[in-house]
Amino acid sequence: MTRIDGKALSNTIKGEIAAEVKRISMSQQRPPHLAAVLVGDDPASAVYVRNKVTSCEKIGFESTLIKKRESTTEEELLEIVRELNEDKDVDGFIVQLPLPKHINEHRITLAIDPNKDVDGFHPTNFGKMAQGLPTFLPATPFGIMTMLDRYNIEIQGKNCVVLGRSNIVGTPISILLSRKAKPGNATVTLCHSRTKNLEEYTRKADVIVIALGIPNYLKADMVKEGVVIIDVGINRIEAPERKSGYKLVGDADFDEVAPKCSFITPVPGGVGPMTVTSLLTNTLQSYKNTFKIQ
Amino acid sequence: MTRIDGKALSNTIKGEIAAEVKRISMSQQRPPHLAAVLVGDDPASAVYVRNKVTSCEKIGFESTLIKKRESTTEEELLEIVRELNEDKDVDGFIVQLPLPKHINEHRITLAIDPNKDVDGFHPTNFGKMAQGLPTFLPATPFGIMTMLDRYNIEIQGKNCVVLGRSNIVGTPISILLSRKAKPGNATVTLCHSRTKNLEEYTRKADVIVIALGIPNYLKADMVKEGVVIIDVGINRIEAPERKSGYKLVGDADFDEVAPKCSFITPVPGGVGPMTVTSLLTNTLQSYKNTFKIQ
Repeated sequence: MTRIDGKALSNTIKGEIAAEVKRISMSQQRPPHLAAVLVGDDPASAVYVRNKVTSCEKIGFESTLIKKRESTTEEELLEIVRELNEDKDVDGFIVQLPLPKHINEHRITLAIDPNKDVDGFHPTNFGKMAQGLPTFLPATPFGIMTMLDRYNIEIQGKNCVVLGRSNIVGTPISILLSRKAKPGNATVTLCHSRTKNLEEYTRKADVIVIALGIPNYLKADMVKEGVVIIDVGINRIEAPERKSGYKLVGDADFDEVAPKCSFITPVPGGVGPMTVTSLLTNTLQSYKNTFKIQ
Repeated sequence: MTRIDGKALSNTIKGEIAAEVKRISMSQQRPPHLAAVLVGDDPASAVYVRNKVTSCEKIGFESTLIKKRESTTEEELLEIVRELNEDKDVDGFIVQLPLPKHINEHRITLAIDPNKDVDGFHPTNFGKMAQGLPTFLPATPFGIMTMLDRYNIEIQGKNCVVLGRSNIVGTPISILLSRKAKPGNATVTLCHSRTKNLEEYTRKADVIVIALGIPNYLKADMVKEGVVIIDVGINRIEAPERKSGYKLVGDADFDEVAPKCSFITPVPGGVGPMTVTSLLTNTLQSYKNTFKIQ
């Protein structure tokens, strides 16, 4: 069983990006620049955004963090988006989700210039991805594809089962796995809350991507020997033995399923760290597009 | 076994559209208007486009057919697209594919205003579809969803297998079948040329959508009793007994598989006629969007 070390891989890729930034930004007037917009006081969102900004610093990107109060109006946020769209010194930006309830997330996402949408959430980029055209891939699915690639996990012709059909993970990863590309060319089944006899699908799967948000859902008797498990879930459960009183677990019951796996991602330290890496890779790509660097 | 009569259903829906056009266009200055651009001399394309224009006339739409010579340049075609984008009297338009080889189809598709892209091929519309947002659905998948709906074929929780992953049929229908919607909520497996042990998937399928372009590919021993087969293939094979010397057959071997089916679409007269209907429905929707009609 190989434990896929997302943290180490993420650091490797950040190192590669840093080296590339050093090389290419010498001949340009400025380094790549990522901006992040955070509205409100959600503590988890604050952590995610800080993480992204810190990563930028480490690899030689410029970064801007725009923090707005919870009561920011939709129109005010749209104005910020418009300014970032037009700012020639910004290569890409993200608006951290979730937004306060009085703001329509779709409207904000649609207002972002697809050429700066390094989260890959804009329908134009999502559609290009689904049509196999070059574009910014959404962060989590992109991170998973990178893992499969760097660990040389062959998925061509394999039976892949995706659990969960969200717009940010399940649906896009099901599309990417089945694309005519490398990695890709898998036979993909997309399962969700309405799927009947789920075990019949998971027991035959060569690869399982699970993104349900249900702690320890996937058990040993649901998978076959040699399966590859990519666990996207990050669930907080009580752990009285710990000082914090809680711990993070995935959607797969790691201790149960790991012995049957050929590869498995742990939680934490698996898919999570790859998400930021994808964002940085997309920002670098946007920078290269602007300055026409191959 | 129920034979799904695409031709009759298409006529029913055209009748419904005609009635609606009559009702709503009384209060507007003009009826809905579809334009079609045909470049070159491909005889099949000419038939398709003529078909679309004739359908417009029958249901009270205005229509425009723009025919250009084979040697039309990409820039000339882009100029036509720009004019149609700006023409306030045109609700939707299509550029018939395939285009001559010296023209980049992607560039043309990307130039079409998504609000007039009644073929649903623009990445923005494709992305909205994949994200479950309201948009113009691509014609053939939309036609299939309409058939399932009108024939009350329940697919929620069912095992649906899609054969073929093209951008115009296989990929979008696999997305639509699994969406949280009605019809939808199916568990969908997308199979293609790299799929191993294809029969293992097809034999378990409650619903099969086949779009491979291989005449009579799907045989009786590949499907289970009671299956629903939606056959998208339109293949021309030799038939010396016929005056024309050929006949049209689907991707499923109809005579073999039909006895095992609960529902099946014939070829011709199945999915084909529904495609035009989808285009008309999308054009009517665009008209309603423009004139803000519910």
